[in-house]
Amino acid sequence: MKFGGTSVADLDRIRNAARHVRREVDAGHQVAVIVSALAGVTNQLVELCRSAAPLHDAREYDAVVASGEQVAAGLLAIVLQSSGVTARSWQGWQIPVLTDNAHGGARIREIDGSELVRRFLDRGEVAVITGFQGIHKETGRITTLGRGGSDTSAVAIAAAVAADRCDIYTDVDGVYTTDPRIESRARRLERISFEEMLELASLGAKVLQVRSVELGMVNNVRIFVRSSFDKPEDIDPHGTPPGTLICNEEEIVEQHVVTGIAFSKDEAQISIRRVADRPGVAAAIFGALAEANINVDMIVQIISSDGATTDLTFTVPAADFDRAQAVLGKFKDPIGFERLDGANDIAKISVIGIGMRSHAGVAAEAFKALAERGINIRAITTSEIKFSLLIDAAYTELAVRTLHSLYGLDK
Amino acid sequence: MKFGGTSVADLDRIRNAARHVRREVDAGHQVAVIVSALAGVTNQLVELCRSAAPLHDAREYDAVVASGEQVAAGLLAIVLQSSGVTARSWQGWQIPVLTDNAHGGARIREIDGSELVRRFLDRGEVAVITGFQGIHKETGRITTLGRGGSDTSAVAIAAAVAADRCDIYTDVDGVYTTDPRIESRARRLERISFEEMLELASLGAKVLQVRSVELGMVNNVRIFVRSSFDKPEDIDPHGTPPGTLICNEEEIVEQHVVTGIAFSKDEAQISIRRVADRPGVAAAIFGALAEANINVDMIVQIISSDGATTDLTFTVPAADFDRAQAVLGKFKDPIGFERLDGANDIAKISVIGIGMRSHAGVAAEAFKALAERGINIRAITTSEIKFSLLIDAAYTELAVRTLHSLYGLDK
Repeated sequence: MKFGGTSVADLDRIRNAARHVRREVDAGHQVAVIVSALAGVTNQLVELCRSAAPLHDAREYDAVVASGEQVAAGLLAIVLQSSGVTARSWQGWQIPVLTDNAHGGARIREIDGSELVRRFLDRGEVAVITGFQGIHKETGRITTLGRGGSDTSAVAIAAAVAADRCDIYTDVDGVYTTDPRIESRARRLERISFEEMLELASLGAKVLQVRSVELGMVNNVRIFVRSSFDKPEDIDPHGTPPGTLICNEEEIVEQHVVTGIAFSKDEAQISIRRVADRPGVAAAIFGALAEANINVDMIVQIISSDGATTDLTFTVPAADFDRAQAVLGKFKDPIGFERLDGANDIAKISVIGIGMRSHAGVAAEAFKALAERGINIRAITTSEIKFSLLIDAAYTELAVRTLHSLYGLDK
Repeated sequence: MKFGGTSVADLDRIRNAARHVRREVDAGHQVAVIVSALAGVTNQLVELCRSAAPLHDAREYDAVVASGEQVAAGLLAIVLQSSGVTARSWQGWQIPVLTDNAHGGARIREIDGSELVRRFLDRGEVAVITGFQGIHKETGRITTLGRGGSDTSAVAIAAAVAADRCDIYTDVDGVYTTDPRIESRARRLERISFEEMLELASLGAKVLQVRSVELGMVNNVRIFVRSSFDKPEDIDPHGTPPGTLICNEEEIVEQHVVTGIAFSKDEAQISIRRVADRPGVAAAIFGALAEANINVDMIVQIISSDGATTDLTFTVPAADFDRAQAVLGKFKDPIGFERLDGANDIAKISVIGIGMRSHAGVAAEAFKALAERGINIRAITTSEIKFSLLIDAAYTELAVRTLHSLYGLDK
């Protein structure tokens, strides 16, 4: 069971989380709990480090910031004990959760103490474990996994103790066919495959950290996203509670061609017109953007009618739009291109579904439906289980609703 | 160098502490720094634990509360680095500082990593170490040393690395002959012996934790109490900065008979009149008070004129006065005594000085001087280097000033 920051925001919420834990314990389950810091605490600690020195040692940052989960784990253990559940808190280094030494954004390498925790669980005691952190074996220093890292901690620990399921308690009750704030007919998915969830998470759906979904897929840990705000006592621990199960596609009986529609308005489009079409040009351009720490997403290249030049279109985060144009301006002479076009008010709509693998023409239906609504498509990219469209941002909501209905996600 | 909570209360104070450290590093010293939590933070964490459950697991309390120093150590390391001083933070368990498992009030048993820290210091790097905490070897759980424990951490680490001196930076600039708020002519002591400081600390002088003085005495670690609010740049690191050195009496050249005068107004006096004078009576009475967790301090027993009964006078904390009387009331019948007398508005005045060992009549001078002022002495106890007097609380200031002048402490 993993509880995020909003689910342990204060002592009342921690008590609520404890009642969820107690329900599962009473139902006869062995439980390990992973907790984030109390909502807001991590931000305060990050701000303290920044104020201490804008450029600070990531190792010290980790030592400071990791303290937030330590407090949350201790408090949850105290509350569990006072409700009659035997529990103790564990910090990442006590397990230990071994990571590499990429301080501030470390990756879990190995969880050494799975046997230790298992022995503890086998005695019927609840292990409350700090999320988001581990230790680097060689230096013995505390590491943190980066924002949202507690999801990854939870899935990694679930894998290490061979858990039946990893329940992520959060402030939403699952994964939806699209954002319910845009399309009120959006439905909660009962199940979604790891691959689809990976695309959704990569596209910015904030339900789960991308890395946690990868880990779940690799280790085959079933992840169940559910709400911590459901009243703990109303839930039958032996029934099927509301939530979304992220699992292998074999476990998904009723398969739809399209599972969900994601969108992002924080995109900018840049087109380089009539670039000399010779080897190394793309490498030079994207290399320079990478060096400037600008993430390039969709890339489309079209040979122009003359055959000697090419048009290159791609997207960058809207916040990096000006910086990207400045970087590319310097390439006009050495590389040779006619001009730079760009647009800042752009949205990316993505349609995701493992069913696309076996169904042809899924994207074509979208082009037709959007054209009928007068929505112009500026660029298209496709992958095995996803296609993405670039449109003017003003049409975002219309496009999402049109596609949501087109693929029968309303029903 | 140890910095208490008020000396690292916020980032400005932490920067000030860093400048003190830098001055010593620039002067060619190897430096280990022990820090407390930012002022107020420990109280907040304690309050969180209490709110989570009034009766909580001391092991979880320790895990929660120890996080305060972790933040302070990381921030000080960041600030030191940004001022060009190579530094890293260490948590108690990383050294490791090994303690017993008396969670919430653990005692340091051994500091395993003195070699590790020494190696680090030998490379010219500053070790910033969390005070107040350690780890219990067998359970691998974090322990805390109890309030004021950072002083003890500092002295223990100074002993482990064979430091020349342990500088305690605090909000006062040393140890005074008496409280300057009562006697404006109180003077800062240049030096004071471990034994005298131990008496002062036991009497409630809040400059240092008693245990840290004991540790300093046993390991012969010279402790220097000084102010963190002195401007770091104004201090000559090779000169004699303002402060009080706590050291072996051999190091104190100019010895006075009396070194200081302490007082406490939070005392209550209880007298049991005409108790049957037979074996086991005192044990029964004081056993019952101990069981009720009431600390008994001064005890005076006087055989009454009839020779068959005795009068027993002692002090308890004023806060426990009513409770102590209730406990004793139950003994009236089984033990047999005439009546209970008590007074709540009582002060204890203590005169301390190693010179008393070789000077007779020191206490007699006090009795005379106080009598001349019309101050009645309710009880007297003496030890090798100290005597204490019980008087009416209203005379506290007058008594302190009278004795301060009597023993030449004004000059």
